[in-house]
Amino acid sequence: MGQEAYQRVGLGWPPADEIDRRQAGFQQRLAEADLDGALIYQNADLLYLTGTQMPAAAFLPAHGPSLVFGHPPLDRLVAETPGRPVEPMPRSTDLKDRLEDHLGRPLGRLGLELDVLPAAVYQRLADKALAGVQTADASALIRSARSIKTDFELGQIRAAARNLDRVISEVPRFLRPGMTELELEGEIVGRLRADGHQGVVSMRGFNQSIFLGHLLSGPSGLVRSKVASPTGGTGVGPGIFQGAGPRVIQEGDLVSIDLVGTHGGYLADQSRLFFTGPAPAEVRRAYEALLDLVEALTGEMRPGASCGHVYDRAFHLAEKRGIGAGFMGLEPPKCPFIGHGVGIELDEWPVLAKGSGAELASGNTVALEPRVFLPDWGVVGIEDTYLITENGPEPLTVTRRDLVEVIV
Amino acid sequence: MGQEAYQRVGLGWPPADEIDRRQAGFQQRLAEADLDGALIYQNADLLYLTGTQMPAAAFLPAHGPSLVFGHPPLDRLVAETPGRPVEPMPRSTDLKDRLEDHLGRPLGRLGLELDVLPAAVYQRLADKALAGVQTADASALIRSARSIKTDFELGQIRAAARNLDRVISEVPRFLRPGMTELELEGEIVGRLRADGHQGVVSMRGFNQSIFLGHLLSGPSGLVRSKVASPTGGTGVGPGIFQGAGPRVIQEGDLVSIDLVGTHGGYLADQSRLFFTGPAPAEVRRAYEALLDLVEALTGEMRPGASCGHVYDRAFHLAEKRGIGAGFMGLEPPKCPFIGHGVGIELDEWPVLAKGSGAELASGNTVALEPRVFLPDWGVVGIEDTYLITENGPEPLTVTRRDLVEVIV
Repeated sequence: MGQEAYQRVGLGWPPADEIDRRQAGFQQRLAEADLDGALIYQNADLLYLTGTQMPAAAFLPAHGPSLVFGHPPLDRLVAETPGRPVEPMPRSTDLKDRLEDHLGRPLGRLGLELDVLPAAVYQRLADKALAGVQTADASALIRSARSIKTDFELGQIRAAARNLDRVISEVPRFLRPGMTELELEGEIVGRLRADGHQGVVSMRGFNQSIFLGHLLSGPSGLVRSKVASPTGGTGVGPGIFQGAGPRVIQEGDLVSIDLVGTHGGYLADQSRLFFTGPAPAEVRRAYEALLDLVEALTGEMRPGASCGHVYDRAFHLAEKRGIGAGFMGLEPPKCPFIGHGVGIELDEWPVLAKGSGAELASGNTVALEPRVFLPDWGVVGIEDTYLITENGPEPLTVTRRDLVEVIV
Repeated sequence: MGQEAYQRVGLGWPPADEIDRRQAGFQQRLAEADLDGALIYQNADLLYLTGTQMPAAAFLPAHGPSLVFGHPPLDRLVAETPGRPVEPMPRSTDLKDRLEDHLGRPLGRLGLELDVLPAAVYQRLADKALAGVQTADASALIRSARSIKTDFELGQIRAAARNLDRVISEVPRFLRPGMTELELEGEIVGRLRADGHQGVVSMRGFNQSIFLGHLLSGPSGLVRSKVASPTGGTGVGPGIFQGAGPRVIQEGDLVSIDLVGTHGGYLADQSRLFFTGPAPAEVRRAYEALLDLVEALTGEMRPGASCGHVYDRAFHLAEKRGIGAGFMGLEPPKCPFIGHGVGIELDEWPVLAKGSGAELASGNTVALEPRVFLPDWGVVGIEDTYLITENGPEPLTVTRRDLVEVIV
């Protein structure tokens, strides 16, 4: 078997009509924004719109069939986009003609992913290949389209959640005082990868990157980093500024395991809490208050609710439950969001952010991640990924929510 | 311990004079390019120029001390950049004034990392915060500065190589026919992570990402992907288009393990070859021819040698040794490079690329990765990361080069 005999391998490939639906949703947004089409380059957007990250680019006119460009040999791309027209990426001098030929008329306004396209790439396109074409930022359109999940996508996120659950449910079998955070995460990642975890957790934001998430013990839970997350952690040194580090987990330690499962290119984000020994009353109380807060807050996470309002309500509920002091940070500035969209990327829309006027919509998938920071113990948190529905949020992550005491 | 008591954790922190040397090398290039300075945003460049990825940005004037900006609270950033002035990131309306105040005169030409800065970020800077300032692409300057490693950086790469070697040397203890590629990689990544691997392998190129590398068995070695590498692999499905996949390793399989070790933010890239059983003569012959090619080719990798010439020589040597047919690809187009710079990122300069007129320089670190693709067996390869010196390339990776037969 060489490239020429490539067959799609692995799990989670979307059927052709699924891709048709996604393209139609994006194309409707292009039409409403008076764009003639969009030229899509970024891997996550390509995966969404074509079912694979293999294209060099994809042209989505506002109306009519898409055109997928690849780097020869095209066999793998053809196998991964069955039934869809695929052709070699035009030279830059031919690109505009090819798009206009497909469109059947001159290009007026063309959307590009200006939030992720490097400035130098954009300049070359705007000054040369697409000279004379008016370009516009289509990133809000693609992010908005992607924020409403299809049933197929929900199936992938549920599968990602189950993959994660299988391993996190085993943690009490191997978490022991005397291990480092890194050794504990080694046990987890070895199992996840063997079971098909994709390893890379995609984030869209510039400079944002994460390994599997944040596995933090005791005081590591209080260390902030630069990543867009309420928690940080030391990491292993200058190479990564977050997540598990060399700290040895002690008896009587709080261990927060906030990790991402994957399936078919989709993510599920979940955090669970462990204690190496009998959990002290302060930790139990904070955790119970947090679970209580989640129940109240999810009651308000309905289609139409403003993201900024949900954020504010979380702080109000935390105050009422006596966990306001360390809620979303020990000192100002507190974390500016308490939840985020999850799908192909970990930082999708919507974001439950301070001051955001965006509204929740049916079909959004949101990881809600309230945290209470306790100076003596570390971070107490719970995180689940929810589907927003008319009947309220439905959890997609499935691991039991107990505070697990690991007593050996 | 909270943020306010943060101490640098982990291994591989550069001393202050190391940062001085790196900044001086970059500043000299800024001065030669007639830039007043550069405003640096990207994590890998920040790590290089400040010793940590925690800054929001760093201003490097062409002459004089740098200015490091952070997001409050600044305690962690201060701890990770000891003795260096640090202040909160100015609001965008104050940014230009702050830079000019530090510079002591109006900003004429300012360098930005246009190869990685998103177009929308750049547009906001150019149109608003830095309106009136002439901006220029400083990415070649920072990539060129970073391509000449200091002794400290070489120490980090050597440590990364030793970290990788410890695990790869154990592979014969757990590689067994009947495992999937993913299960084998699970064994490896669990050990690497427990030992302090950073998990994320940084790449600079747009859309380039990789997990730990490519662990490929039998026909998986022939599957191409979109990543800049001679090999690809199936990956696990649509979520990742390369690397280990669900294929079950058979008896009599060729297994190529091309993975990246890390230490202190630095990478070491190495590939080693295994066979589950007695290796057939065709595989042995190809591997011996490849080792022979490496010996001849490294003899030409001296300071001043043109990268394109080294690339061409590799193909010439492959033809002479009878491995031309499958060298760097079974069919055209063949892989357009046979080696690449390695440091903080996996795709650093120099690149031993087809047609490149760039010249090797003393202090470059280059992963040389020739491959022969055999239709019946998969990919036969060897990769080591070398330091370019006046006396020829010195290997920084240390694992024994035997084709390891795993016979159980």
